[in-house]
Amino acid sequence: MNYQGKRWRTIWRNPDDTVGVIDQRLLPHQFQTLALRTMEECAEAIRNMTVRGAPLIGATAAYGMCLAIRDDPTHPAIHAAVKRLLATRPTAVNLQWALNEVRHAVWQLPLEKRLDRAWHRAAELCDDDVEINEAIGHHGLKIFREVLAKKPYGSRLNVLTHCNAGWLACVDWGTALAPIFMAHGQADIDIHVWVDETRPRNQGASLTAWELKQHGVPHTVIVDNAGGHLMQHGLVDLCIVGTDRTTARGDVCNKIGTYLKALAARDNGIPFYVALPSSSIDWALQDGLVEIPIEERNGSEVTHLRGRTAGGAIAEIQITPDGSPASNYGFDVTPARLITAFITERGVCSASEPGLKELFKK
Amino acid sequence: MNYQGKRWRTIWRNPDDTVGVIDQRLLPHQFQTLALRTMEECAEAIRNMTVRGAPLIGATAAYGMCLAIRDDPTHPAIHAAVKRLLATRPTAVNLQWALNEVRHAVWQLPLEKRLDRAWHRAAELCDDDVEINEAIGHHGLKIFREVLAKKPYGSRLNVLTHCNAGWLACVDWGTALAPIFMAHGQADIDIHVWVDETRPRNQGASLTAWELKQHGVPHTVIVDNAGGHLMQHGLVDLCIVGTDRTTARGDVCNKIGTYLKALAARDNGIPFYVALPSSSIDWALQDGLVEIPIEERNGSEVTHLRGRTAGGAIAEIQITPDGSPASNYGFDVTPARLITAFITERGVCSASEPGLKELFKK
Repeated sequence: MNYQGKRWRTIWRNPDDTVGVIDQRLLPHQFQTLALRTMEECAEAIRNMTVRGAPLIGATAAYGMCLAIRDDPTHPAIHAAVKRLLATRPTAVNLQWALNEVRHAVWQLPLEKRLDRAWHRAAELCDDDVEINEAIGHHGLKIFREVLAKKPYGSRLNVLTHCNAGWLACVDWGTALAPIFMAHGQADIDIHVWVDETRPRNQGASLTAWELKQHGVPHTVIVDNAGGHLMQHGLVDLCIVGTDRTTARGDVCNKIGTYLKALAARDNGIPFYVALPSSSIDWALQDGLVEIPIEERNGSEVTHLRGRTAGGAIAEIQITPDGSPASNYGFDVTPARLITAFITERGVCSASEPGLKELFKK
Repeated sequence: MNYQGKRWRTIWRNPDDTVGVIDQRLLPHQFQTLALRTMEECAEAIRNMTVRGAPLIGATAAYGMCLAIRDDPTHPAIHAAVKRLLATRPTAVNLQWALNEVRHAVWQLPLEKRLDRAWHRAAELCDDDVEINEAIGHHGLKIFREVLAKKPYGSRLNVLTHCNAGWLACVDWGTALAPIFMAHGQADIDIHVWVDETRPRNQGASLTAWELKQHGVPHTVIVDNAGGHLMQHGLVDLCIVGTDRTTARGDVCNKIGTYLKALAARDNGIPFYVALPSSSIDWALQDGLVEIPIEERNGSEVTHLRGRTAGGAIAEIQITPDGSPASNYGFDVTPARLITAFITERGVCSASEPGLKELFKK
């Protein structure tokens, strides 16, 4: 996507065989890139959320595998790299998927051919991600038109999204934001996006708002508490979110708070869509509530916030009393029953095992 | 309640006939009192949220009437004061109620008797508020025991609350927090409170957490997104919140986000209680969604946050990109159908017109 007139992806191979990324911890106030030089730096970038978003975590892990193989292409080293990278974040299944893809691609090759093949496979995964998201965008756009067609002619389409499932969460386009970016370019669609700020890390306020602002998409930032009220008053036509892991029966694990919006959507008869690249499906799991590991992060993300002061400096403030503990679950699970449909790279399906199997027969 | 070993109310008459309040904008980082010297200063303190919380807004308005009458006890002046104070905040009905109480108390009296009577009536309203909340506390405590009795012996009672309906929102005790403070003193109850931070103004993180910390009540601050996940995993035994206005049929208007928690409680079979002083009932209204005016506040409360830096200074930071607009509705309406029961000063009743009328026959 575009930033200041230049076309960007969120991750790329540099000529010196380091891996370029955007430091997403600094957005929306600073746009700065970083070169990751080792597998360990890739792991750290995932862990400390320099990069985040299920698809981008997968892409970064794939490139991390390349840097590991560059240093040591033997089976034990590859195995250790998979283990190290897998331990960075527990919830998104794309991480595991991408690691397996690179490992399988190189495992049977002679030692000297493994590195080239790894770079090649990592680049393929990234290109695939872009294509997948573009396809999700096209399928989503059709749904947007259907929803809009039910409103009076000339109405604005109001879309609510939670967290950031935009191009910053992927390699390009985004999952949930792909149809939004596409809709914005259409003469027959007047789109406006309600952006949940998405506490505690504010990926909505800092990343989604920034993406939409860069592309000129009309949007309004709201607190996570506001969506229910907006839905009660007819100010939301549809919800669309991403997913970090989806079970075979269609339960969706996504950023904490997604479940609350899905409940409000159902209570108000508003369609709730999940943009789902198939790499986010965990076919091994059924009951998302019981089976998906939910990351618990440091309570300091709740008690402290970073932002820009009037003077332009980046500062951190504490909002709680000294000594009040905080808990910080990163994700929640939205049961399949609350989801209107999945928008995947192969089309739209119901949030159910038959629905998913129809599109992704193994 | 206690702050540093001293017993406090949130509002009091000073010997020099000014009105003392705690500047709640500075909590939890600074405890500072202010003396309001005129009706206009009382109105401004309500408007700028030096004081907040439906019952305390009412009490402050009552004292504002005293200061207005001190300056001019004539009917036109009283009328103007009511109008000015009523315009400060649109949603809480206690404001209107308290203003009417003082006006009625003085209206028929000779000019020279009005001021004394106003001071007397304002003090009575405050004393009544304390008594009402204490009664709510006792009735709520019974419910807490009933809920706890259904858990295995020795279990902890986990209560979730939204915003601040504690003593800072009232004259003393609080509404939703009154039973929590009482339960904390009981040998047979091990209570723990999940405190929603309550964006955008963070009254949970800054005021409720501070109150609970001061009194030693075990608590954990969470983001507003987290409650659904906690309820799905059996970590919440009951929810209890306050109300800014309740319609005759039992719809509750409370801090934005309350509705989302009520939906999650219903979806998980968790009781959802509203602590309701009868002054918060608006008998003239039926459909809360349609009839209650919802305050829209400045978007800067969403885009900017105040807190304490590591160095101890109070600083304001911006979390959104420049130029991204924000919307800021202060309240939402939880339909009666989602509410398990009201806990009032006269006992517990269903969230319905028959329920309310049974307790408060006019």
